[in-house]
Amino acid sequence: MDEFGLIRVWTEDRQSKEFLQGSGVILGIGDDTAIVQGASGQEWLLAMDTMVEEVHFLSDTMCEEDIGYKALASNISDIAAMGGVPKFALVSVSIPPNWNEQRMKKVYDGLYECAAQYEVAVVGGDTTAAPRHLVVSVTVMGTVEAGRALRRSDAGPGQFVFLTGATGLSAAGLHGLLPKPEGSRSPRPPQRLIKAHQRPSPSVKAGRLLVEQGWGSALNDISDGLASEAWEIAEASSVRLILKEAQLPLSGELAAYAHRCRINPLDWVLYGGEDYVLLGTADHRHEAAMKEQFRAEGIPLFIIGEVEQGAPEVLLEASSGRRQQILKQGYNHFSKG
Amino acid sequence: MDEFGLIRVWTEDRQSKEFLQGSGVILGIGDDTAIVQGASGQEWLLAMDTMVEEVHFLSDTMCEEDIGYKALASNISDIAAMGGVPKFALVSVSIPPNWNEQRMKKVYDGLYECAAQYEVAVVGGDTTAAPRHLVVSVTVMGTVEAGRALRRSDAGPGQFVFLTGATGLSAAGLHGLLPKPEGSRSPRPPQRLIKAHQRPSPSVKAGRLLVEQGWGSALNDISDGLASEAWEIAEASSVRLILKEAQLPLSGELAAYAHRCRINPLDWVLYGGEDYVLLGTADHRHEAAMKEQFRAEGIPLFIIGEVEQGAPEVLLEASSGRRQQILKQGYNHFSKG
Repeated sequence: MDEFGLIRVWTEDRQSKEFLQGSGVILGIGDDTAIVQGASGQEWLLAMDTMVEEVHFLSDTMCEEDIGYKALASNISDIAAMGGVPKFALVSVSIPPNWNEQRMKKVYDGLYECAAQYEVAVVGGDTTAAPRHLVVSVTVMGTVEAGRALRRSDAGPGQFVFLTGATGLSAAGLHGLLPKPEGSRSPRPPQRLIKAHQRPSPSVKAGRLLVEQGWGSALNDISDGLASEAWEIAEASSVRLILKEAQLPLSGELAAYAHRCRINPLDWVLYGGEDYVLLGTADHRHEAAMKEQFRAEGIPLFIIGEVEQGAPEVLLEASSGRRQQILKQGYNHFSKG
Repeated sequence: MDEFGLIRVWTEDRQSKEFLQGSGVILGIGDDTAIVQGASGQEWLLAMDTMVEEVHFLSDTMCEEDIGYKALASNISDIAAMGGVPKFALVSVSIPPNWNEQRMKKVYDGLYECAAQYEVAVVGGDTTAAPRHLVVSVTVMGTVEAGRALRRSDAGPGQFVFLTGATGLSAAGLHGLLPKPEGSRSPRPPQRLIKAHQRPSPSVKAGRLLVEQGWGSALNDISDGLASEAWEIAEASSVRLILKEAQLPLSGELAAYAHRCRINPLDWVLYGGEDYVLLGTADHRHEAAMKEQFRAEGIPLFIIGEVEQGAPEVLLEASSGRRQQILKQGYNHFSKG
């Protein structure tokens, strides 16, 4: 069973709708963030994301500062994926013996760098020992105008599908960072791909535009890969998503590096995670205004497909018009699981 | 350096007071919870607490359900320690290969049992793999009337010191649960001590009474042990705390088990953690009303000492009147660190 299946088995139907509603829960488990009632006119978005040594990072792939930065950034991205403003963070670290005070200080250096960039107040957390690998868990609270959060369940037939940036860069960067078998000659990836993996930029500005202008319908951030996130929208909204291969943004650097590695770049574009750009759907009547405003703000916007009525699935449409289903496969850092 | 020293080094002065205040932060790192602005007349309390296999529990000491129950309970206790009402929880689990779906379901069974008991809505979280030990991290949001949260920095000279229950029971239970060297004959502790360790009861009702009636000044929950929590209040409030040995509550079962084990029960009472009763201070003018109301509600209340002016420290006063400083030592589950 995959992660989402397991979460369902462990958590579904545990608490009654009446209890949850009465408690002020507007949206529970199953989207990028939970939504709970806030002050009048405003709701709270709650996200929690964990990074584990050997699962999400190795000393080869991320330095201490990167780990702290990305642990917070991935949570901020969840707030962005609802169209919200990140506000507060809590940080819990479980520290094994080989992570000394100096190394841990660097983790916090990176975390506070990200906090400063996104104006997030770090207000608390926990510090414990761990027998082995480092675990960094972060909770972020954000706000959004009441009733305006962009859920993955709000895609509708006739809408177009968009991305706010290219995907696959983080996975390509990771590929380049991983140690290679001895003797093998492997090209080093461009800095931009490495940076995409180590220092992702959550798309808060794009999310805010979509909410403030009322353009966005469904929205997800690319944490588990384009394929997986598109499937989530399709299933949550009960629609078919058509992604047009020719319209998927392909970074030139990614294409060149993939070519040198003899890897199909589409594998990274569809199944590479942690790019933290936004995948969404919107009505065609907003298309022109969106394009203009995104251009004015310097935020990329790629129209990559259409939403159709039909059983939930995601299809990739080739230039020939031929369609095939995209695997529901998620992102696995070190292909262990 | 101890945990609190490290947290200071890693987090102190990272963000300006102006920024934090402007963001709506009322209290940042350094108490049981953070406090941030809520709807009018109300503030949010934010707590995050992590439990790590081999550090906080072993298969000998806690079953799956206990782990889930206690991971949430320890966070609820942080809300109780501010006098608040727990409302929402986020849960992150990092799962090693030997923790299968069935075992993890039991962890959630225990967690939801605790959530039902304290009427906490579980609204989200994260699930990741882990190479080895299980890590369960929980965030809880609670509410409190604006300006009424009970901070550890609010103890004042002339106040009395109280406990809402006996301490040391959890540590004694853990002692009984730990595997003994082969051949050694060791008494088994009473169920009540084992239960105190595995299924602690956060003191939400007591905390609410203290806030609603305006009785409480400083307040902490006993997570790191009476000695450590008393030191935190003394240092945060810049006062001297006198704990009177003869007035410390000593459970008969704890005393009997300690005697059979040839252990000084005071070691558990002072330095055993995770009892999750409340340690606080209050003005003497409230003493009679507090005693009466706590009795009426069936909540224990022990007056165990006094707050004096003086350099921050905690003294234990024997019946003879002789005083000696209590070690600032915290609680260490398996005495590894």
